[in-house]
Amino acid sequence: MIFILQDFYELTEVSSRKSLSSFRGTIEGKGEEMQKVNTRALSGFMELSPEDQLEFDRIKRVILNEHLDHGFCPVDVPLIYRKEVLLAKAGGETEKQIYQLKKGDNDLALRFDLTVPLAAYVTEKQQDLTFPFKVSQINKVYRGERPQKGRYREFYQCDADVIGRGELDIAHDAEVISVIYGVYKKLDFGEFTIRVSNRKLLTGFLDGLDVGDRTGAVMAVIDRAEKVSEDEFRAGLVELGLGDEQVDKVLRFTKISGGNDEIVSGLGELGVENELFGRGLDELVSVMDLLGKMGVKDSVKIDLMIVRGLDYYTGTVFETLLNDYPEVGSIGSGGRYENLASNYSNEKFPGVGASIGLTRMFAALKEIGVVKSGSKTVVDVMIVPFASEQFEYCYELADRLRAVGKRVDVVLMEAKIGKKLAYADKMGVKDVIVVGEDEVGSGRVAVKNMESGGLVDLDEYLKNA
Amino acid sequence: MIFILQDFYELTEVSSRKSLSSFRGTIEGKGEEMQKVNTRALSGFMELSPEDQLEFDRIKRVILNEHLDHGFCPVDVPLIYRKEVLLAKAGGETEKQIYQLKKGDNDLALRFDLTVPLAAYVTEKQQDLTFPFKVSQINKVYRGERPQKGRYREFYQCDADVIGRGELDIAHDAEVISVIYGVYKKLDFGEFTIRVSNRKLLTGFLDGLDVGDRTGAVMAVIDRAEKVSEDEFRAGLVELGLGDEQVDKVLRFTKISGGNDEIVSGLGELGVENELFGRGLDELVSVMDLLGKMGVKDSVKIDLMIVRGLDYYTGTVFETLLNDYPEVGSIGSGGRYENLASNYSNEKFPGVGASIGLTRMFAALKEIGVVKSGSKTVVDVMIVPFASEQFEYCYELADRLRAVGKRVDVVLMEAKIGKKLAYADKMGVKDVIVVGEDEVGSGRVAVKNMESGGLVDLDEYLKNA
Repeated sequence: MIFILQDFYELTEVSSRKSLSSFRGTIEGKGEEMQKVNTRALSGFMELSPEDQLEFDRIKRVILNEHLDHGFCPVDVPLIYRKEVLLAKAGGETEKQIYQLKKGDNDLALRFDLTVPLAAYVTEKQQDLTFPFKVSQINKVYRGERPQKGRYREFYQCDADVIGRGELDIAHDAEVISVIYGVYKKLDFGEFTIRVSNRKLLTGFLDGLDVGDRTGAVMAVIDRAEKVSEDEFRAGLVELGLGDEQVDKVLRFTKISGGNDEIVSGLGELGVENELFGRGLDELVSVMDLLGKMGVKDSVKIDLMIVRGLDYYTGTVFETLLNDYPEVGSIGSGGRYENLASNYSNEKFPGVGASIGLTRMFAALKEIGVVKSGSKTVVDVMIVPFASEQFEYCYELADRLRAVGKRVDVVLMEAKIGKKLAYADKMGVKDVIVVGEDEVGSGRVAVKNMESGGLVDLDEYLKNA
Repeated sequence: MIFILQDFYELTEVSSRKSLSSFRGTIEGKGEEMQKVNTRALSGFMELSPEDQLEFDRIKRVILNEHLDHGFCPVDVPLIYRKEVLLAKAGGETEKQIYQLKKGDNDLALRFDLTVPLAAYVTEKQQDLTFPFKVSQINKVYRGERPQKGRYREFYQCDADVIGRGELDIAHDAEVISVIYGVYKKLDFGEFTIRVSNRKLLTGFLDGLDVGDRTGAVMAVIDRAEKVSEDEFRAGLVELGLGDEQVDKVLRFTKISGGNDEIVSGLGELGVENELFGRGLDELVSVMDLLGKMGVKDSVKIDLMIVRGLDYYTGTVFETLLNDYPEVGSIGSGGRYENLASNYSNEKFPGVGASIGLTRMFAALKEIGVVKSGSKTVVDVMIVPFASEQFEYCYELADRLRAVGKRVDVVLMEAKIGKKLAYADKMGVKDVIVVGEDEVGSGRVAVKNMESGGLVDLDEYLKNA
C-alpha cells in the first residue's frame, strides 16, 4: 500500500493546517463540496461482490487443484510484452483487439491469451525445463473487444498444457481431457459431455475428396450441415461443382453418428484413402482407449462436427457442454498443436492443452442460477466478545479453533452485543461463540449454529472438527 | 487457449499445402530460415523458473491463508481504470510512472497499487458491503519506473485492509499487525521485528513545538538523527532558529529508547501539551495492549523513527524487518488512514491496512539464500508404468493415492524404463512407484523414496499418509 487516498480533516481540526502542509503535501478540506470521480468499473470488466468472489475463487481453486493433482506446475507469466512477441503469428483481428501501451518508446501491449506468453516462456527457459513440461496457467487476459453480453475485456483463462520437445506422446491428449473431466466431476454443475474429435479426420477427408482449392467452401457448407435440409445441403455442394460421388461421400461423413464404437466403425466404412485421415482415426481411437484407462468412462463422446472454431489445432480437439444448459456454450475446450513456438525457436515444441474460460462461464452459470452466491465471509466461526476485557480469552479460543482447521474471526467492534450479533448474522457465518465474563470465569463455552439455533459444547465441537 | 501459434509442417508433408491454405490461413515452412522474435521478458518483469515459481506460490499461499484465517475476504479488482479514477488524488510522480493505454478514446491506465482500486470498489459497492469490511487483495500492480536492482515494473502486493463506514475501532490496527506477525511466524525466514509507531506522536510533537512553517525542515533534521553526531544534530536545529528549550526537547524525543514500556514512559515524561500528541500516545498504548491480548507478545517493538516514508498514514504505522537481514528492508508495512475514498464519496471510510511487497521480498531473499528453489514438481508421487498396458492399473493406483491427499503424476512417455526413471529423478519427486506386469499380476506395489532409496509397501504408505 504505497499510495493512500486520505482526508486529513480530522487531523487538521486539532492542529495547524498551515504548519503541517509543508511536509505532508496537499491537504484537502472535508469532501462535501468536491466533485466526485465516477468509480464504476469499465464495461467488459467483471467486479464481483464479496459473496460472488468467494464462489468464483472456490471454482478457481477446484480447477487449480485438479491441475496440481495431475502434476501441472504453475507458471505466472508477465502481462506486458513487446508487440512483436504478441503478434509474431497473430495479426489481423487480434491486432485490432490488443491493448497497446503509450509508455516510452517501446511498442508494448497486454497479453491477449496465455499461449503466446507460454511459447515465449518455453523458448526462453528451454534449457532449464524438463520435458514433457506440464504447465498450469490460471490468469487474466485482455482484449479490447466491443463490449456485449457474454463478452469480457478482462477475463480468466485456466489452461493446462503439456509441451514436448521434438515429440509428445498421444497419451497426453487424453491426459488434458481427463483434467477437464476431473474438474466438472468435482464441480456441482450437473451432467456434462466432453465432445472429442481429431482435426486430421476432416482435413484428411477433404483432402482425399480431391476438390482442389474449394476445400474452404466445402468446409463452410459442412459447417451448416445441422442447420439446413438434406436437399439444401446437396445443392450447396453441387453448386461448388462436386460430382454425385463426392456429394454422397460428404453426406455420409456428416451423417455418421451413434455411440463411440459406431462412429469409429462408420469412419472406417467411408473407405477414405488418405494417410492423414488414417492417422487421425488411429489417434482418435487411441485417445478414447486411453481415456478409458484413465477412468474417464462416462461423459465423453466422439463428435466429428466440433472441429469448427477449433481450426488452429492439428490433431485431437475437444469441447465441453453442460447437458442441461447447452446454451452456455463450451465450458472447456482445447486440443493438440504441432508446434508451440515456431516463431520464436528452431526447436520444435508440440503441445496439447485444455482451457476453461472461467469469467464467461461464471457469468453465464450465475445468470441461470447454477452458480449461487455464498456467504459474505470465509470464516467458519465468529467469536463475539461482550467487551474488550474478553479479547485475550477470545484469541486463545481462536487459536484452538484454527489448530483444528477452522477459519475464525473475532468481532472487534466496540458496540452493544446485539449489534455484534447482527454483524455475524449479516455476514452469513455458520457458527458463533459468544464470550462474556461468565464464559471466561467458568471456561465453559458454547458454539451456536446460526441456522438451526442449536448449541454445542466447545469441546465436543473441537472433537468433531 | 483461443489463439495458437503453430507449424503445419508435419501436416503439410502428407497433404496438399495449396488446398489446405485456403481455409487454414497462412501456413509456413519449417522454421529454420525464419527470423526469430526475441522472447526475453522485459526488464522489470519477473519470470520465474518452475521450481522458483513453486516456492513463490507457497509463500503467496501462506499469506493468503493468514488473511483468510482472520476473516479477510478476497476481492479481485480490475487492472484497467479511467485515468481520472487512478489519479484522482495522486498526480505528480505517480502520473509519470503510470502505464497508459492507447486503446480507443478513453483515457485508460493500469492500476499502480491496490488501494485506489479498493477505494473505487468500496465506493461503488457500499450499499452491499457489511462494515467493518475486511478485505484481502493479493494481486499484481504496475509502475513504469526506471528499472534498477530491487525495483520491479510488475510486482505483487499482498494487502489486508479493514475498512469502516464513519468510524473504525482501534482494535483493527492491532489486528492487521497480527496478520503480518502470523505470516512471518509461519514462514521460515528467521527472527523478525515489527516496528510500531503512531503518526500523531511526531505530528503532535512538532505541532506543540511551535516552530511555525519550519515543521518540514525540523522533520528533515530528525530524519537524519541516527546518521549524525549530537553536535551536528543540535547545530542543524539551531540553524533553523530553534531556541535552546526547543532543541533540547527535540533531542530528548529522538533519544527515547528501551523496551516498549520505557518508550511509553519516556513519551509521557516529555511533557508535550498537545491534544494530537496525547491521542497518538493513547492509540499506541492501546495497540500494544491489544497486540498482547491477540497473542502477539514477541517480535513487536515501538520505534518512533519509522514514520519516515510512511507519511500518508494518519495514526498507527508499522514496518517489519528481518533481524538477521535488515538490508532487505521492510517486508511488511502499513498503517491507519482517515479516509479511503475522499475523492469518490461523501461518506467517510476510515481504514487500516498491512501490505507485503512479495515480488521484491522474494527476489531479495532468494539472492541472499534465505529463499531456496524447490523441486520441479508439485506432485508427491510419480507412478512409472513399464508400458502402456499398465496405464489402467496406474490410474487406479493414482486415484487411491489422491484419496489420501497425495498429488500424483503418471509418467506417460513411451520410452525405456530408465528414461522414465531419469525423468522422475530430474523432476525432483520424493516418491516413485514402478508398475510392471509383476505388480499388476500380484497386486503388490512398493513405494521408493528417491532420497533414501528405501522401499515401503503401498498399504503401509497409504496408512501413514
